[in-house]
Order: sequence, then C-alpha cells, then structure tokens
Amino acid sequence: MPSTSETLTAERILEATEEVLRRHGPAKATVVDVARALGVSHGSVYRHFRTKAALREAVTKRWLDRTSEALAGIVADEERDPEARLRAWLLTLFDAKRRKAGDDPELFATYMVLTGENGEAVGEHVADLTAQLARVVAAGVASGAFAPAADPVTTARAVFQATGRFHDPCYAKDWERPGVDAEFEAVVDLVVRGLRG
Amino acid sequence: MPSTSETLTAERILEATEEVLRRHGPAKATVVDVARALGVSHGSVYRHFRTKAALREAVTKRWLDRTSEALAGIVADEERDPEARLRAWLLTLFDAKRRKAGDDPELFATYMVLTGENGEAVGEHVADLTAQLARVVAAGVASGAFAPAADPVTTARAVFQATGRFHDPCYAKDWERPGVDAEFEAVVDLVVRGLRG
Repeated sequence: MPSTSETLTAERILEATEEVLRRHGPAKATVVDVARALGVSHGSVYRHFRTKAALREAVTKRWLDRTSEALAGIVADEERDPEARLRAWLLTLFDAKRRKAGDDPELFATYMVLTGENGEAVGEHVADLTAQLARVVAAGVASGAFAPAADPVTTARAVFQATGRFHDPCYAKDWERPGVDAEFEAVVDLVVRGLRG
Repeated sequence: MPSTSETLTAERILEATEEVLRRHGPAKATVVDVARALGVSHGSVYRHFRTKAALREAVTKRWLDRTSEALAGIVADEERDPEARLRAWLLTLFDAKRRKAGDDPELFATYMVLTGENGEAVGEHVADLTAQLARVVAAGVASGAFAPAADPVTTARAVFQATGRFHDPCYAKDWERPGVDAEFEAVVDLVVRGLRG
C-alpha cells in the first residue's frame, strides 16, 4: 500500500483546496484546513505548494484553465469555417462564465476574491484566450472570410474586449436578465461584420 | 433683499450636496450637513427634496447628465458626417469618464456608491446615451455610410456595449494603463467596420 505522501498529488490538494474555500470562504481558509480535509499533515501540503499564496494561485489558475481548455478544442476544429469557430468560441465562453456564476454563486464569489489577488494568473489567462482568438482571426484572414488584419493579436484583443460584457465577471449580475442573449447576438454580429470588413 | 428661501435653488442645494459628499463620504453625509453648508435650516432643503434618498438621486442624475449634455452636442452637429460624429462621441465619452475617474478619485468613488444605490437613474442615463447613438446610427444608414440596420436602437446598444471597456466605471483602473488608447482605437475601428457592413 502506498504511503499517503506518495498518493498525495497536486491535483488532489487543489481539489481539496477548492472544497475548503467553498466551505470556509477565501478570508478564513487555511493550509491546515486543506491538510485536515485530506487527512495529511500541513507539511505534506507544503511539499507541493511552498506557501499559502502559491496554493491559492495554483487553484485560481486551475479554475481559469478549465475554461481555456474547452475553448482550445473549438480553435483546433479546422473542419468548421473560421466565422463558425469564432461564434462558437464566444458563445462557449459566455455560457461557461454564466454557468460558473449562476450555478454556484458562493464559489464564484470566492474565485472573484482569488482572481483579484492573482493579477498575474489572470493576465496569463487573458493572454492565452487572446492567442486562441488570434489563431481564429488569422485562419479567417487566410481563408478570405475576414479582411486582412495588420496584426491578428491586436484584432483578437479588440474582439475579446468588445465582447467583455459577456465574459467579464464584473457583468455577472446582468447575465440572468431577460434580453441578454439578444444583446449577445447583436454584439457578436457587429464584431463579425467588422472582421469581414 | 430676498429671503434665504427665495434664493435657495435646487441647483445650489445640489452643488452643496456634492461638496458635502466629497468631504464626508457617501456613508456619513447627511441633509443636516448640506443645510449647514448653505447656512439654512434642514427644513429649507426638504422643501426642495422631500427625502434624503431623493436628494442623493438628484445629485447622481446631475452628475450623469453632465456627460450626456456634452455628447448631445456632438449628435446634433450635422455638419460632420455620421462616422466622424460616432468616433468623436465615443472618444468624448471615454475622455469624460477617464477625467472624472482620474482627476478626483474620491468624488468618483463617492459617485460609484451613489450610482449603485440609484439603478433607475443609471438605467435612464444608459437609455439616453443609447438613444443618442441610435440617432447617429440612423443618420449613417440614411447617408449610406452604414449598412441598413433592422433597428437602430438594437445596433446602438451593441455599439455602446462593445465599447463598455472605455466608459464603464468597472474598468476605471485600466484607463491609465499604457496602451489603452491603442486598444480603444482598435475596438472603435472594429465597431465602425461592423457598422459599414
């Protein structure tokens, strides 16, 4: 039988951390709580994450990466034309954020505190999403679906920012309002027409 | 010589209220403070604004209306073509918000509390700005500069939402970052190309 320290993976610690954060809230959750939830010493947790801040950053990155991974699949699906991929990407992002905010508002609020603390992780996440969008923009330019772009990353950032109302957590309270889906459609149509040029 | 109650206009009360809010903060400012600043009884203030909530709503509306009035002049300037008016309108809105946030951060924070309390005044303000944009969109469709729009108000709302990063106070902290002006340009270019269709 393996010893506890052998089976204690970073992923198991991060799962437990999310659960502890959900239960205690971001202000009170400690590494000792995480260790207790796993039935290990807090030293075992520190062997994987050297500080409480590193653990909180890792759990934040894990939460953000879950969204990026789903979106990366859409970018890679070259059977669909670039405009269809762009529309699917934006809708999937909106749905993922809306579900996170609506299904478990307490956990969402917890992650809002954590993303506020971990600006670097958020910056990397936004850069990752922008790079994904830039691939779709470049594919659209190559196929002739979109007008030539001086710099696909600049264009991708503009698309990401122009649709912020439908993925930026500061708008989470608007995502359940009636009419928001029609508003999303109108902004995406405007953006897609802008890309076609 | 006129009595105090004759010269005590709503506008003078609102000016004094803004000053009191700036000095005491939104949590502590009272109608008695406003009356004291004006050298009148609080009854005189209540003759113009029947409740403290009505006074706070009126000062919020006045603050929001200052922006709308500057923008209305751009909409009405039919010597300029619709695209130029649209670009000037969006830039003037961005500049006005950025100046409010940057020049007097404490007063801006105060108004953020007040707009949070006065959702209806904010809703009217957004509807007013959207109606202004709809006039420019309709003028552009009429002149042939913009593609036909099924409903100029829907299109105007999409333009307003797509540019939210450059006028919505939840982004105020980003407005001083290097590169933000280039980001603004990229979003406005994308939106204008979308309107041209």
